[in-house]
Amino acid sequence: MKKMGSMRSQERGKLAYSRMGNQITDPIITQLMVEALSKPDLLSLAAGFTDNHVLPVNLVNNVVRNLSRRTEDTEYLQYGLNQGRLLLRELTCQLLATYPGEVGKEFNPEQILITNGSQQALYLAIQVLCDPGDLILVERPTYFVFLEMLKSLGVEAISIPTDEDRGINFEQFAAMIEAISVSSKRERLKGIYLVSYFSNPSSRCMPEEDKSRLGRLLQSLDFSLPVIEDTAYRELYYDDPYPSRSILSLPEYEGIPCLYTGTYTKPFATGLKVGFAYSSDYEWLKKMECVKGCQDFGTSNFTQAIIESVLNNDLYPEVLSGLRKHYKRKMKVLQDSLDVYGLRDLGWDWEIPKGGLLCWIKGSININTNIDSSFCKSCVDHGVLYVPGSICFAGDEPTYYVRLSIGSLDEEHLQEAVKRFVEVVKRYYQHNL
Amino acid sequence: MKKMGSMRSQERGKLAYSRMGNQITDPIITQLMVEALSKPDLLSLAAGFTDNHVLPVNLVNNVVRNLSRRTEDTEYLQYGLNQGRLLLRELTCQLLATYPGEVGKEFNPEQILITNGSQQALYLAIQVLCDPGDLILVERPTYFVFLEMLKSLGVEAISIPTDEDRGINFEQFAAMIEAISVSSKRERLKGIYLVSYFSNPSSRCMPEEDKSRLGRLLQSLDFSLPVIEDTAYRELYYDDPYPSRSILSLPEYEGIPCLYTGTYTKPFATGLKVGFAYSSDYEWLKKMECVKGCQDFGTSNFTQAIIESVLNNDLYPEVLSGLRKHYKRKMKVLQDSLDVYGLRDLGWDWEIPKGGLLCWIKGSININTNIDSSFCKSCVDHGVLYVPGSICFAGDEPTYYVRLSIGSLDEEHLQEAVKRFVEVVKRYYQHNL
Repeated sequence: MKKMGSMRSQERGKLAYSRMGNQITDPIITQLMVEALSKPDLLSLAAGFTDNHVLPVNLVNNVVRNLSRRTEDTEYLQYGLNQGRLLLRELTCQLLATYPGEVGKEFNPEQILITNGSQQALYLAIQVLCDPGDLILVERPTYFVFLEMLKSLGVEAISIPTDEDRGINFEQFAAMIEAISVSSKRERLKGIYLVSYFSNPSSRCMPEEDKSRLGRLLQSLDFSLPVIEDTAYRELYYDDPYPSRSILSLPEYEGIPCLYTGTYTKPFATGLKVGFAYSSDYEWLKKMECVKGCQDFGTSNFTQAIIESVLNNDLYPEVLSGLRKHYKRKMKVLQDSLDVYGLRDLGWDWEIPKGGLLCWIKGSININTNIDSSFCKSCVDHGVLYVPGSICFAGDEPTYYVRLSIGSLDEEHLQEAVKRFVEVVKRYYQHNL
Repeated sequence: MKKMGSMRSQERGKLAYSRMGNQITDPIITQLMVEALSKPDLLSLAAGFTDNHVLPVNLVNNVVRNLSRRTEDTEYLQYGLNQGRLLLRELTCQLLATYPGEVGKEFNPEQILITNGSQQALYLAIQVLCDPGDLILVERPTYFVFLEMLKSLGVEAISIPTDEDRGINFEQFAAMIEAISVSSKRERLKGIYLVSYFSNPSSRCMPEEDKSRLGRLLQSLDFSLPVIEDTAYRELYYDDPYPSRSILSLPEYEGIPCLYTGTYTKPFATGLKVGFAYSSDYEWLKKMECVKGCQDFGTSNFTQAIIESVLNNDLYPEVLSGLRKHYKRKMKVLQDSLDVYGLRDLGWDWEIPKGGLLCWIKGSININTNIDSSFCKSCVDHGVLYVPGSICFAGDEPTYYVRLSIGSLDEEHLQEAVKRFVEVVKRYYQHNL
């Protein structure tokens, strides 16, 4: 058979990728993980992993055994609905109605989509809303995996103007929205992304007052700006749930397309990977479901059935209760260690989290904690890993934050990791100041 | 706060979607499933479900129990690598090297990505290759969920010229490729998709001779045209594995970017949703992995660990062996019923499958089996459902095929479903001919 053409013969064997294929790169977190794996002695304050010691091994085993006794009803090992199991969606509605300010509210299982972790819910939401070049507003700081996801979809993240200590600066934000709404970017602006409970990375919660005010600002616009509220850590409070209602319940969000994402596996067993989205906008959710039908036609029915059974037998609260105590204790160990080794005395500052797995620390302003910095290299050399704060910002990244996680290390190693970290900070000042 | 602008006030409350969001619709199969769920007496010869009676309930229970005894090693309930478990990937390499013609071949676990069923592998592969407007070549007929997925991504499917009884028409195909390669479509042509073992919907296998000839045709081009080989039914032969090597082993595919997709859950327990992709092109696979990192950062570690354990304890062959006997018997029931009720006598024709779950039947040429046809409506009214053949074609759809599945019905209901189906066919001829 004759050779066809010749013009492009230099490309033989080289694939022509899509825009996404050309632009996609390993996310920074993968680089950190590769780093961690290559050095077995490295103590990771970076990993957002939950704690292996509190994984519900026996509970999962018991639930599976009970499922296996339903000899006439083996459907949990079969394909399920693309939207997710109906009972799981019903139980999710019941769970949503237990949160502060949301008790008694009627949630509708038809407005839920079960996903592969809440990450897939976020991905589907953005796929349905955004084309390459579109804009999404995010907090300062925000969840860096979300930023990487936006980038992979060609979507630009823009930071909501924020005062470092007081949250959203509404005057500046209103001015920014107004500027966008009269510019060519108006058509490109597609939504707002909030991580409002014990946020990754800051562990902060958004006060209900701020959330309401944001709703009023959105109501004042003459176009619909949908809101995504990521609540992955909402259940992981230490003493009390954060008292703010979600966007699903606040009257200021009436008529605004809202998507609330949550996860069952972050506070239970991350290896099960079951999350969900609840939307006040049925059409948006249905479109997400259609896209999911193409991506995988439904999350593992088996892992859904396990979560469903845990909820249905009222076993979830006990797991959460144990987890809260465990993480509260570990956070105390982290805080005590930071005090003992004297990080605050070096001018570093942070709020003490009241929930979640993370501590968001502001270094002194002249430090550079980026992944390619000498400080970061020193930490790795000294056997400790953190998440550089700059990757949690959409543009104008400050270089002096670090995110420390209490997730994967036990108490003894947490102390040792903090010791190593503070030693590097001290050395840094000795050499650089 | 003042209202901003006014030009677009008519759009208040209405979301502005992406191209994908605007175009996505419920796939036909969802319509069929909704139809089925709304009529509990309907017997479905449509569903590609596997058989609830042969799901490995006890095996999964035992495996989970054994996992739970690894008290020091609970990582199977934790986040895992985005690429998938290393041991599962190693065992997958060993499995690939057991197929006819592939014994002894060295497969590399670094060239495997574990996915949420093989469906996600196909989705990722196309995301990395194709932008909207790009072209993918498919067989006639082909897997309709793949066609719907291409449509959702804005990618156009083009049929490979095919003789109805002899497979690919290579003369016409070569001419077609040549025409494309000198046209403006050349840059848009991104790949070929094959379902080569007990195909969905036709249950046909592609002879090795044809696969080799296709490889030689691709080698003769002066550009790289990647090949995706979907082998979801490869394990589900009744008596003997189909003797053709895969594209990973055929020398004619040396240097051509190849992606082989497979599933562990179709032939085991669909509710576990674990599939994989193996690529000869490391870069292509890595890019898929990066996109997966944004979509869900890794398939459920728990369901992966279950499959891994089944493989590692050499329990998989026994499951497959039982399944093969089971589906062989059910296919015989289907065939016997089709004979007993006399469908062939009415001029309908088909090959008797040697594997898989499907029977692909060609009706007489003047029949219309489409979902909106009076024939389809009559079937639903008469309590039986099938997959209309036309949805399995990329353009120029013949309307006289049906796909019948032996998956979900037991033997008695299979017989009854065939009886109902043939009754409708008979009535159709009485009224229309």
